[in-house]
Amino acid sequence: NGATPTEEMNGAGNLMDFLDEPFPDVSTYEDFHTIDWLREKSRDTDRHRKITSKSKESIWELIKSLLDAWSGWVVMLLIGLLSGTLAGVIDLAVDWMTDLKEGVCLSAFWYSHEQCCWTSNETTFDDRDKCPQWQKWAELMTGHAEGAGAYVLNYFLYILWALLFSFLAVSLVRVFAPYACGSGIPEIKTILSGFIIRGYLGKWTLLIKTVTLVLAVSSGLSLGKEGPLVHVACCCGNLFCSLFSKYSKNEGKRREVLSAAAAAGVSVAFGAPIGGVLFSLEEVSYYFPLKTLWRSFFAALVAAFTLRSINPFGNSRLVLFYVEYHTPWYMAELVPFILLGVFGGLWGTLFIRANIAWCRRRKTTQLGKYPVLEVIAVTGITAVLAYPNPYTRRSTSELISELFNDCGALESSQLCDYINNPNMSRPVDDIPDRPAGPGVYNALWQLALALIFKIVITIFTFGMKIPSGLFIPSMAVGAIAGRIVGIAVEQMAYHHHDWIIFKNWCRPGADCVTPGLYAMVGAAACLGGVTRMTVSLVVIMFELTGGLEYIVPLMAAAVTSKWVADAFGKEGIYESHIQLNGYPYLDVRDEFTHRTLATDVMRPRRNDPPLAVLTQDTTTVEDVETLIKDTDYNGFPVVVSRESERLIGFVQRRDLTLAIKNARQKQDGVVSSSVVYFTEDAPQLPASNPQPLKLRRILNLSPFTVTDHTPMETVVDIFRKLGLRQCLVTRSGRLLGIITKKDVLRHMAQMMNQDPESIMFN
Amino acid sequence: NGATPTEEMNGAGNLMDFLDEPFPDVSTYEDFHTIDWLREKSRDTDRHRKITSKSKESIWELIKSLLDAWSGWVVMLLIGLLSGTLAGVIDLAVDWMTDLKEGVCLSAFWYSHEQCCWTSNETTFDDRDKCPQWQKWAELMTGHAEGAGAYVLNYFLYILWALLFSFLAVSLVRVFAPYACGSGIPEIKTILSGFIIRGYLGKWTLLIKTVTLVLAVSSGLSLGKEGPLVHVACCCGNLFCSLFSKYSKNEGKRREVLSAAAAAGVSVAFGAPIGGVLFSLEEVSYYFPLKTLWRSFFAALVAAFTLRSINPFGNSRLVLFYVEYHTPWYMAELVPFILLGVFGGLWGTLFIRANIAWCRRRKTTQLGKYPVLEVIAVTGITAVLAYPNPYTRRSTSELISELFNDCGALESSQLCDYINNPNMSRPVDDIPDRPAGPGVYNALWQLALALIFKIVITIFTFGMKIPSGLFIPSMAVGAIAGRIVGIAVEQMAYHHHDWIIFKNWCRPGADCVTPGLYAMVGAAACLGGVTRMTVSLVVIMFELTGGLEYIVPLMAAAVTSKWVADAFGKEGIYESHIQLNGYPYLDVRDEFTHRTLATDVMRPRRNDPPLAVLTQDTTTVEDVETLIKDTDYNGFPVVVSRESERLIGFVQRRDLTLAIKNARQKQDGVVSSSVVYFTEDAPQLPASNPQPLKLRRILNLSPFTVTDHTPMETVVDIFRKLGLRQCLVTRSGRLLGIITKKDVLRHMAQMMNQDPESIMFN
Repeated sequence: NGATPTEEMNGAGNLMDFLDEPFPDVSTYEDFHTIDWLREKSRDTDRHRKITSKSKESIWELIKSLLDAWSGWVVMLLIGLLSGTLAGVIDLAVDWMTDLKEGVCLSAFWYSHEQCCWTSNETTFDDRDKCPQWQKWAELMTGHAEGAGAYVLNYFLYILWALLFSFLAVSLVRVFAPYACGSGIPEIKTILSGFIIRGYLGKWTLLIKTVTLVLAVSSGLSLGKEGPLVHVACCCGNLFCSLFSKYSKNEGKRREVLSAAAAAGVSVAFGAPIGGVLFSLEEVSYYFPLKTLWRSFFAALVAAFTLRSINPFGNSRLVLFYVEYHTPWYMAELVPFILLGVFGGLWGTLFIRANIAWCRRRKTTQLGKYPVLEVIAVTGITAVLAYPNPYTRRSTSELISELFNDCGALESSQLCDYINNPNMSRPVDDIPDRPAGPGVYNALWQLALALIFKIVITIFTFGMKIPSGLFIPSMAVGAIAGRIVGIAVEQMAYHHHDWIIFKNWCRPGADCVTPGLYAMVGAAACLGGVTRMTVSLVVIMFELTGGLEYIVPLMAAAVTSKWVADAFGKEGIYESHIQLNGYPYLDVRDEFTHRTLATDVMRPRRNDPPLAVLTQDTTTVEDVETLIKDTDYNGFPVVVSRESERLIGFVQRRDLTLAIKNARQKQDGVVSSSVVYFTEDAPQLPASNPQPLKLRRILNLSPFTVTDHTPMETVVDIFRKLGLRQCLVTRSGRLLGIITKKDVLRHMAQMMNQDPESIMFN
Repeated sequence: NGATPTEEMNGAGNLMDFLDEPFPDVSTYEDFHTIDWLREKSRDTDRHRKITSKSKESIWELIKSLLDAWSGWVVMLLIGLLSGTLAGVIDLAVDWMTDLKEGVCLSAFWYSHEQCCWTSNETTFDDRDKCPQWQKWAELMTGHAEGAGAYVLNYFLYILWALLFSFLAVSLVRVFAPYACGSGIPEIKTILSGFIIRGYLGKWTLLIKTVTLVLAVSSGLSLGKEGPLVHVACCCGNLFCSLFSKYSKNEGKRREVLSAAAAAGVSVAFGAPIGGVLFSLEEVSYYFPLKTLWRSFFAALVAAFTLRSINPFGNSRLVLFYVEYHTPWYMAELVPFILLGVFGGLWGTLFIRANIAWCRRRKTTQLGKYPVLEVIAVTGITAVLAYPNPYTRRSTSELISELFNDCGALESSQLCDYINNPNMSRPVDDIPDRPAGPGVYNALWQLALALIFKIVITIFTFGMKIPSGLFIPSMAVGAIAGRIVGIAVEQMAYHHHDWIIFKNWCRPGADCVTPGLYAMVGAAACLGGVTRMTVSLVVIMFELTGGLEYIVPLMAAAVTSKWVADAFGKEGIYESHIQLNGYPYLDVRDEFTHRTLATDVMRPRRNDPPLAVLTQDTTTVEDVETLIKDTDYNGFPVVVSRESERLIGFVQRRDLTLAIKNARQKQDGVVSSSVVYFTEDAPQLPASNPQPLKLRRILNLSPFTVTDHTPMETVVDIFRKLGLRQCLVTRSGRLLGIITKKDVLRHMAQMMNQDPESIMFN
């Protein structure tokens, strides 16, 4: 509200100081309330001004002011280091525990399958996967590695481990940190837009989310770690904010740090620092000044390099799915790429609708009362159906990695079972297109089944009471579809060189089609359909491959997928969940184009009781107390008199309560019949009258006003850009009413014919 | 001002339509005036609303509305295609004309040196450079290729060509398009912030800037084509805006297109589409919604791919300086990298101060009156000094390219004249560090001289009346310094393996130091010091190399350079030029932290005559005409009466003039003594009274107001974020004064103790 500089000019800063920090460690906003950006900004400027003027006094103060100026960078460094480390630890733990479902390393039980066989002496590629130190459970327990009995026993133990992990995850979430569930991105978007959700980014959430994320991913459920990693990084950001009063006591500054932390989260999730910054800018953040851009970039880089030093993938690469393709793409291939885009858009629409319907069902029916049972059931079904199919049994990120890969000459995977030309002299990078072997056809069937399975199970998984990200399952769906299309195009091109569509670019014996590229394009399309990310999506994918060459296919797919999905509904999965949960989120992207005016939205409406106002010099303490008791407004406008209704300021309910309480306790003579003065000077009263209470210092003399004729379009713009909590409506200087953020959101929802009651919070 | 929807509700849209388009093809703002962002936005929403409601009427209207919705993408596509093509043509022409200064291709005179020798039959690397088809002028004219006479003749012709090119360039600029001079980025920043400079982005500017850019670069002056390419791309954007009334008639929408065009410009200048988008976001744009982000990316990609299809560098690469390094960097190398950052910061400060001082001198003294002579003189000096040194004789981008390069085994350049180990069996990529040969020492001296020359001459070159970019000369200074440092570190590491600083990471026979990387880091540092770019700089450099590996060195140098340069003055070269020219640019990055209030800034000041206001129902037509004649304000507040001073609206001077003129011409009975009514209903007057003039339809009923107690910090924020032209100041509903953008800028300049008179325009 910008009151601070004003009252300091009025010479009374003491009460305000008291009001600003009534209880140490408690911020001045209540839970589930909206912050006032302008006020936070003005408070920070004040703080900065004080430090600057003090810094001229002594060397010590100068050092303190320098430390203060550098604290932003220190926080970024710490966030980068901690979130990079946590991401590395999570990666290592997930690797180990995912493999634990199938077997154990005899030489050292804390090794994952890959690490176990690295240390083995077997050196050929094929044998590494089957080193003697690594034993499946059946082999270890019964001594038989093969046969139906061993298969059943392995199957059973796989399910058992999955159930154990998911049970642990959901129990930990239930008992210690209910906020640790879900992906966290909808809530972080809401928090960054200026909402208070206490404890959402707390230490317990950080700890429990990290642990349960490992458990949830290892359990083999169809979920990813990317969204939750953003939440974890934001928790780190919040943790380090508490080290510096600059950030811990200012909700606006804190949100700058959180925006940067979100960038660091995506940076470590994908090994894509630039993509992370753009993700934070495009998808998550609300207020993103240029200073934050630079700091986010720093945090994202530190995080990425910390993760690289931990090197969880053992390949010195930053990225999750490192790929290298050897052939360019051809114009004609844009047709299948665009088709994949259409598929991605349709998948996005289907997923959002089905998932929201299911989540609404969970909220409104008995289902929501048994979250543990739900998780157990879904894990059971997932494990039972996933084990028989080799493409769903392994972890989803391994699956994506294999699907993205170009088939080299030495590749032993089923997907690379092509019939080699016997004349081919030596293994080269640039292998010409070959006919598919039986393995490939087999893989195609299994992939088709995996696709259907992933599509269905992901809808039920996202939104359960465990940490669950969407990126990896969405990418998996797209990668499977893309690879299938890619193999189909490849085989068509091989067998029908003479068709017109292939004639121009695909000669016999050339390497024309890279099915891995199709998988990548499909993954981008599906991720785009679900999240509606655009630039950041393409940049993340570009950082995965490192080649500008493939930006055009990726963009073609991403644009198509966004257009197709937008045709069915503008909202991405995060916005849909924000709406489902009724968070007061004012989307920057929604354009408000209706012709309503401020007068149509303001309260009081016609036939409502008049607006609760205070007068500047006729209200008594008792009147004020009654008003506070009878209403639950966050603040009250102050007018010259009820007759003239000329506005002079706005007073916060909270400040008013505290000031009266304080005056009653400490100031002699303030009684119920004392008159409250908001004027500059209280008149000299006869001694018989009760002592007046002067409250100009808590009055915000610069409340935000618009006229009743202001188009709502402009009002919405003002609320968005200035981050207001409320705005007063006047006509020719007379106060007519008030518009709060809640009113704006309700009005926007009404205009879009949505359920206005879904806005729950104040 | 948002008046449009309001009056339409009042049922009178005819006059407004007339007012909105008084003359076809002329926008509603005057030259050198500021636009009102809120009003533009509101006008666009109206337009959009009309089209949407019409689209339900017929198929044809539906198609028209779809075309309208797609027009943004079409414009982007066209901008990408045209700016990519122009960049390709410019590259080809510059290549040819730069070589023309030295010689000519006999087989086809329109071939550049490189193209000429490509077609030659000589195939070995060394001979290609000296193919018989390419002849230097002396050889062609006298038959002697060597000797003092040939050298002098070549020298003379080099200077002559340079003078000819620069004379042509400056003459064309002077005669046809004065706005085509300079880099254009300061002006584009100002235009994007909402200022009108007519003709700055016109067709003539586009044509002349393209032609003279080729001439200026080819003349060998110390300037680059990057900044002007941004200007050229923006001209393309403006050109295509005129195809669609959506963009041509709305200054706000037009600026969205221009932001994207700026991204396309950088994209083709460096072959860095993502860097281009971030440059537009970070450096150039003012209002950058997410929709523009996505469109900019599209335009930047189309432009980059168009350029690639033209393939002016003949290497199928998008980027200007493609490099590939084979060794990683080591932690200890951060020390020289940071030193290069310090150098970059110092160079930035020196350059900005010296260049601004020189430009101010040019503006204020006789010097400014002889622009042609100045260009000729500087070209002459440049050519005379540049020819003898092989590193300054060639084009600056070739120089940078060579400095960035890692020395391969086959490299024949002087800079790669290392003493090879005779035991080295075959050329490999990963050559160990070698002792420098005489060629390298020779090159070091020449580079040092080139460094001093470039530093001095660039200061005098930037700001002359020809198209001139800063990126390339700045990068050249940094690259030279970096390469020198790199070679020094390399030789130290080779000769002193046992020093503690090298011991840990540099073993004998290893390839420890890549001098080319130092050149790149130095280039980034110097560019950062001059422009204060941050993220976009690192991303552009990252796109040049394509390796995440080198982001940390680049970032270390960029951060250091920014910090060092900022310590001497916050403003980059573009902001300094904006200030020098007195453009009304409200920088988003300057933080306003002073404690002044709106009442300190508003006009009328104390002792000033009272504010010029209109009353709602007592002013006569004659009064209004007198007011318009006597003042030059852009608009007038309308109050209930002079006594109560209660504000009811704001009326634009332009609308008022047109309405009165229109009424006098067409409306019977409106005479000088007619009363002007701004109320909803004019009272019924006796027939003897003159006919009243009802003007409520041109009244903006929702003018922006703040109270007199509002801190200026908040007012500045409101002006920035909402893009206001003016704001009215009230106290308890009474109108006290007005604050315009000019007042805000003047106040900010005063607070920073700068010359308030430098804000020239309104």
